Amino acid sequence: MTAAGIPAGADARWALKTLTRFVPDYPAPGIVFQDLTPVLADAHGFRLIVNDLADACGPCRPDLVGGLDARGFLLGSAVAVELGVGILAVRKAGKLPPPVLHEEYALEYGSAALEIPAEGLDLQGKRVLLVDDVLATGGTLAASRRLIERAGGVVCGVAVALEVTELDGRSRFSDLPLYVVSAGR
Amino acid sequence: MTAAGIPAGADARWALKTLTRFVPDYPAPGIVFQDLTPVLADAHGFRLIVNDLADACGPCRPDLVGGLDARGFLLGSAVAVELGVGILAVRKAGKLPPPVLHEEYALEYGSAALEIPAEGLDLQGKRVLLVDDVLATGGTLAASRRLIERAGGVVCGVAVALEVTELDGRSRFSDLPLYVVSAGR
Repeated sequence: MTAAGIPAGADARWALKTLTRFVPDYPAPGIVFQDLTPVLADAHGFRLIVNDLADACGPCRPDLVGGLDARGFLLGSAVAVELGVGILAVRKAGKLPPPVLHEEYALEYGSAALEIPAEGLDLQGKRVLLVDDVLATGGTLAASRRLIERAGGVVCGVAVALEVTELDGRSRFSDLPLYVVSAGR
Repeated sequence: MTAAGIPAGADARWALKTLTRFVPDYPAPGIVFQDLTPVLADAHGFRLIVNDLADACGPCRPDLVGGLDARGFLLGSAVAVELGVGILAVRKAGKLPPPVLHEEYALEYGSAALEIPAEGLDLQGKRVLLVDDVLATGGTLAASRRLIERAGGVVCGVAVALEVTELDGRSRFSDLPLYVVSAGR
């Protein structure tokens, strides 16, 4: 057993279910927020999840990982280390100096946008694995894919720790390998 | 040579100087913004910097890495993988569900705050290595340290890729090991 109580032989799903902080009625009544902070802060839990994602995604042979701002940076960067590739930070709009490529996506009310540098970075022909913490509607992952493709890259797969299945984000990526550690509680 | 032109035997400083996107007069006239996106997206550059930080910080024997939202997640998570420990995401205020520990810090105009979960996470007696991309005034790193200490942890070191030496952030951490890959251009 680790200090956090993960038994030997436990897998990534077990770590997620055991260490996630489940917060009921947040951010709205009826929603259970899944805070992965304690999972990633636990050496064993972090290792199990990173290994699981890297093992699953290795076969799509990424040249680099695209991590989504901000929580996708945590898993994305770790998976990149594990696969021996670089990590491309897909930033929220307004964080990067110009010039940038910019892609908007719809929110429940209004819109938001993601950006990557438009120079200093050669994505032409590169295979990019997109990594985030949660797949919900898939709006941010789809906007990230458009950014990569505009820069000449190819998204070769999508990997997340959790999926909100009711929102059916996976239907946007039916042409790609999609890997989810756990379908939730 | 790698695709990005990093010669064999190059070190982390060389990677930073070669691959960083330098943007003059951003965000204000006279300031040169250093965008690390291309460095981290390059497999070889990323590897050199992560190895450099992990080698330098291993001796402070962290139980976990504290990565600062958002760019500190990229290096922090990678260093955590390399050291075989977990990654604690130190979040910008408003991102985490309650209950949280909350610490404000001063900005040039006004203030901002950082948060970590106040439950589901046991930092009592844990040694935490703080990682961010840039050490400027040190305000966010100092606020992160206060958060860790309020949770019962001990900050055992600070590691960053770049330092803005004119702002003298390092004077806040004179009692700690502080590691900087490069002092800038």
